[in-house]
Amino acid sequence: MNTLPNNLKQIALFLERLPGIGEKTANRMAFYLLRFPERDLKDFAQNIASLKAKTKMCSVCMNLTEDERCSICQETTRDKSVITVVEEVLDLLSFETGNIYKGVYHVLHGKIDPLNHIGPEDLYINSLLERISTNLKRSYQDGKKIKEVVLATNPDMEGEATAMYIRDRLKEVRKQRSAKFKITRLAYGLPIGASLEYADYMTLQKAIENRNEY
Amino acid sequence: MNTLPNNLKQIALFLERLPGIGEKTANRMAFYLLRFPERDLKDFAQNIASLKAKTKMCSVCMNLTEDERCSICQETTRDKSVITVVEEVLDLLSFETGNIYKGVYHVLHGKIDPLNHIGPEDLYINSLLERISTNLKRSYQDGKKIKEVVLATNPDMEGEATAMYIRDRLKEVRKQRSAKFKITRLAYGLPIGASLEYADYMTLQKAIENRNEY
Repeated sequence: MNTLPNNLKQIALFLERLPGIGEKTANRMAFYLLRFPERDLKDFAQNIASLKAKTKMCSVCMNLTEDERCSICQETTRDKSVITVVEEVLDLLSFETGNIYKGVYHVLHGKIDPLNHIGPEDLYINSLLERISTNLKRSYQDGKKIKEVVLATNPDMEGEATAMYIRDRLKEVRKQRSAKFKITRLAYGLPIGASLEYADYMTLQKAIENRNEY
Repeated sequence: MNTLPNNLKQIALFLERLPGIGEKTANRMAFYLLRFPERDLKDFAQNIASLKAKTKMCSVCMNLTEDERCSICQETTRDKSVITVVEEVLDLLSFETGNIYKGVYHVLHGKIDPLNHIGPEDLYINSLLERISTNLKRSYQDGKKIKEVVLATNPDMEGEATAMYIRDRLKEVRKQRSAKFKITRLAYGLPIGASLEYADYMTLQKAIENRNEY
């Protein structure tokens, strides 16, 4: 590797720190960059240098934003009475790509993961509870009273534990405030386009348990 | 995607232009960058911005370098009488990683590929021939007279065509100058650790044709 120009080597070493990028891929990417127009590289460098300074968290839902509130929270057409709780901003993006959801979000920025020393206090769970409490304190007339919280953490062990923890905390809030909002969880079942032959038995079990009238 | 801060979106779109990076991976990488220390991002930005300005081609072998000649051509311990011809700098790096070769290189920066309109004149073939001619004109006493040119283009159709083309051109030079350097090609055969069961028949054919006394 000491045969590479230093600049190129530094770029390859940096890229290697990204998830899923090994030494060979990083080298290939660094070389590929040489073919890009000078202008594009300069713009990219500019964006990288200002990335942290320009990226903030939405004060309402913890989504990433350049302003005080994110574009979703600023949208007037959004149904603010339904909050979907996701682990990461990338999960939020998955929902947004499909344009299938018109409510708002709350991003936890992680999941409860005791093996990696991540507890509830490391996530934006308290900010979710505060957000809901504040909302419930307001007058009924504003039409934005919370009606439902959808727990959309991942269907893995940590995601389930996180969902269960939040559900219990939300139930407390609901009881304290004598509120009536629903707490729901994403449906389990076969993904569209899946083949029964290759489905794991836990998914099949959920699919048969939650079968619907047809 | 319009829910992302502009900066982050621009970075993701840029990364998506790299080979093997799709939209999802690019997004994941862009988000991952947010966890990097500010200092590292600034350094990376600096390297990217100055990439093209700082990366030149070695005047001798076309390897990439920050100086006029690359680190390999500058090494005094290298055997300058053996030149290995490779398609790309990445191929050169593969040889260098193993520390298995002590000669020098010549980088073509591509291969003859008529379907993509890349002919011999688009590669650094003439510069290789000139390099050899110049060497042959020098006095015999300098001990660096070229003894061998190893054609190390890839064992695919375009790589073979390129090797054959260069071989013919080298033979002309050899004849004109009444020189005696050898022209060789990398060996074909089974890769180490391979399983015969999964080897393709062309590799097997080469392996049996080129079998060695044992």
